[in-house]
Parts: sequence; structure tokens; C-alpha cells
Amino acid sequence: MRMALGIEYDGRGFCGWQSQAGGCGVQDAVQRAVAEIAGATTPVVAAGRTDAGVHAIGQVVHFDTGAARPPTAWVRGVNSHLPDAARVLWARSVADGFHARFSALQRSYCYLLYNHPLRPALLHGRVGWYHQPLACDAMAQASALLLGRHDFTSFRAAECQSRTPVRTLSKAQVRRAGDYLVMNFAADAFLHHMVRNIVGALVYVGAAKYPPQWMRELLAARDRSIAPPTFAPDGLYLSGVRYEESFGLAQSEREPVFELLMA
Amino acid sequence: MRMALGIEYDGRGFCGWQSQAGGCGVQDAVQRAVAEIAGATTPVVAAGRTDAGVHAIGQVVHFDTGAARPPTAWVRGVNSHLPDAARVLWARSVADGFHARFSALQRSYCYLLYNHPLRPALLHGRVGWYHQPLACDAMAQASALLLGRHDFTSFRAAECQSRTPVRTLSKAQVRRAGDYLVMNFAADAFLHHMVRNIVGALVYVGAAKYPPQWMRELLAARDRSIAPPTFAPDGLYLSGVRYEESFGLAQSEREPVFELLMA
Repeated sequence: MRMALGIEYDGRGFCGWQSQAGGCGVQDAVQRAVAEIAGATTPVVAAGRTDAGVHAIGQVVHFDTGAARPPTAWVRGVNSHLPDAARVLWARSVADGFHARFSALQRSYCYLLYNHPLRPALLHGRVGWYHQPLACDAMAQASALLLGRHDFTSFRAAECQSRTPVRTLSKAQVRRAGDYLVMNFAADAFLHHMVRNIVGALVYVGAAKYPPQWMRELLAARDRSIAPPTFAPDGLYLSGVRYEESFGLAQSEREPVFELLMA
Repeated sequence: MRMALGIEYDGRGFCGWQSQAGGCGVQDAVQRAVAEIAGATTPVVAAGRTDAGVHAIGQVVHFDTGAARPPTAWVRGVNSHLPDAARVLWARSVADGFHARFSALQRSYCYLLYNHPLRPALLHGRVGWYHQPLACDAMAQASALLLGRHDFTSFRAAECQSRTPVRTLSKAQVRRAGDYLVMNFAADAFLHHMVRNIVGALVYVGAAKYPPQWMRELLAARDRSIAPPTFAPDGLYLSGVRYEESFGLAQSEREPVFELLMA
């Protein structure tokens, strides 16, 4: 039987999604916890292999098991074996043709940026930070220029293992919420560091180092070496993964807005 | 010269406010950072001595120094020597008669409770958690019965060193925000564990173990032994301290609402 799970984690508690020899990957923690319930070693495949320090509120994974367990066992049972920084949100049996990574039609990411003269303390590690005022409107204009099917080489990490740099960006929104900028992105798939590289470029636009139209030039240049640096992983959240409806999985895309409201 | 600072910290990074031999108190971290800027050992006094795991977004401290520094040095300079989990929000020179603890007219605390069948992961350590549905209205009714000047012995930790158990509670509000309950309390001062003990009792009311009116009986009994257990420190924030206006300090009371909004 093939099972799918929805997973949330605080990226600071792990060294990224991918399994590591030392066992510090989220994948290692999930595999250990699933094995406790399944009663057997159980490889787990994720929709998105998040980097170290990147969080998830809508990660989706799948695994195969011969163990017949009630659905609650795959949620609360697995949770009881996961570290505090991770939890299963839901569990569902899926068709054998389902694959958390290859069946995914769209991934969504949210980036939270704290835009304040002083670095965050309470939200350290959970938000990116930029100390000078950023022009949100300019960033929103620039981000819209990235929408559509493009060669995203200018936003691709050197270590990216994808066969092609072409991706279709279907959402690129920037809005202000108090001292925070909330950026939402969706695409069929993302290249390695693609969101953090886009955020890095948007911050340069917001700080008026370049006009919004420069984003079009940067995209057309297909040259990573002329692009601004990769932004910190701290504010990045894998917020949702979309599959064909026939798989019957939750389609909700969550947004982590940490708002420190004045009373 | 006497200086006052506004301070924010993540309580998980420390063993409580108070200085410890091992140097793990927030006070130790602040004293070390202030000493770097002042160029001399500088004892620091806080308005509220928060327990281990309790956060602050509106802590106020004072210290005396002979060092003449521009205000920004007491903010950014001290911040550059503080660990990531703490920051100075503002600095101001104050009259010699000012005392962070003894001049305080009112302290405010906020408690964030995640009310959901599954434990939190992303907000682990920053919110309290109760798995069964809580009746917010009943909790709000019960909390209102605590308002005013009372002997709060039923909500006082055995180790409390205060001379008297009498306090004046001027705010006791409970409201729901999605899966969260936001509780705000203000008083002239709080007894040791007083907010966490009140939250523990309110949760019993919310879970229908007692009716709201029972809160009046519990208060009147002046008996800690019949009260529900102390709630976890995770969701507790020292949110503000109020002084006489003549001291010229910021009076703002902040509220940490971590809202995970559905997009």
C-alpha cells in the first residue's frame, strides 16, 4: 500500500530534507518515525528537497508499506516518534501511481522578510532580514516580470542538478504586512536556490539599486554571475504542493504570517 | 547616568531572566553586552524576572553608567554583542529616580495557546498547546471574575518570594484567533507563576471540567493545592511594562500573534 503524508517542520532543527550519513536530515527523522509504526525500514520520498534552514508547512511525502494501520496511527503514531521540530499533519492512502515528487503539478513557496532597522530576535531563523526600507511596489512590479515559462539560469545555483533551467512560474507576489514583506511563489518546479535567488534580486530592486525593469534584463541574460547574492534560508517556507485532483489529496496552500501586532 | 532599555528575547535561548553561575540567564547576556559598550562591569535590573522558557517582547531594564555614548550605541552596539535570541529595541537616558522594577506601575503578559488536535512543530516552544476543543467564551467569563484587587494565593507558586499575595488584576481577556487562543493579562505586579497558573485554571474551564463561576470559588479558597497545574512556559510573553509618563518611556504594549493564515 502506498501512503501520502503532509508534513510541517522547522528547518533549523535539521540539516535540510535529504538523508545524511549523520542522520540529521528531515528525511532521516521521518523514516525513523515511520519505521516505528510500519515495523520495517521504510524509504520516504518528498515533493521538495528543502535546503538546510528552510522550513515547510506543506511538504508532501510518500512511502510504501505492507503494514495495515488505522489512519490515525500514521499521524499521531508517527508524530510520537518525530522530534519536536516536525509533525505529520495528515495521512492518506493513495493509488500506486502516485509519486510525491514526480506527480507534483505545482510547488508553492512563501518567503517572509523582516524589514526593520534592527535584526529580529524572537523570530530569528524564521524570517529573512533587511535593515533598510524596501519599496514593496517596485518589488511587486519586478516579480511580475518573472511570470511565465522562462530559462531561469540567472536564478539557478551552480550545483543545481536539474536537466533543464526552464520553469513555468505561475505566481510571484509581494505584499507588505507591517514590518514584514510576504512573498508568494508558485511554479511547476523550482531550480536549486531559485526562490532565494529571486528574493535576493527583488531586495536589490526594493532597495533601489536597480529599477523593476532590470528584472527582465537579468532574466534574459541567463547569467547567474551578474545576479545579486542568494538570500538567507531563514524566511523560506515550502507552503504547498498540488497534485491532480484524482489523487484526492488536500490542495490547501498555507501561508506562515508571523504578525507581531501592536495591542 | 541612568539608562533604560527595551528588550525582546526568545526564552528558549536562556535559563530565565535571572543571572546564573553558568551565565545562561538573559541578565548575564545583557550585562556582558552592555559591559562591552560601557567599558565596565554593569549590573542590569529588569522590570520582570521571567522564568526559563518565558519570552519577552516588552521587557524593560535599567543600569547606571559613566560612559557617554550616543543612543544608537546602546541599541545597535549592545545588539552586536547579544546572542541571536535577544535584542535591544530602544534606549533612553532616564532620571536617577527611575527603577525598572520598583517604578513599574503595571506589567502586561500575553499567553498564546495553540488549540489543535496535533502538537505544534513550527511554533514549538513559542505557544502553549491543548489538544481538545476549548470553549473560549467560558474562559473569557471565568477570567473576568479575577479582575480587581484580590489575594491570589490560589495562583501563587510555593517558591514565590513576594511579601504579599495581594495583587490588582486590571486586564484578563481571552479571545480566539483561528486555532489559537490569545490571552492578555495586566496587573500592578504578578506573583511567581501567576499567569501560568491562571492559564492552567482557564484551560480547565475551557475543557468544561469546571463552570466559569468556579473561578470565583478557586480565588476565594486561597489554596494552591486545589488549583489545576501550572501551564507550560512556552506560550508566555512579557508584553509590556508601564511607568509614570514623566519618565518619558515608550508605553506600547506589544502582542505576539503568530497567525498561520490559510492562503
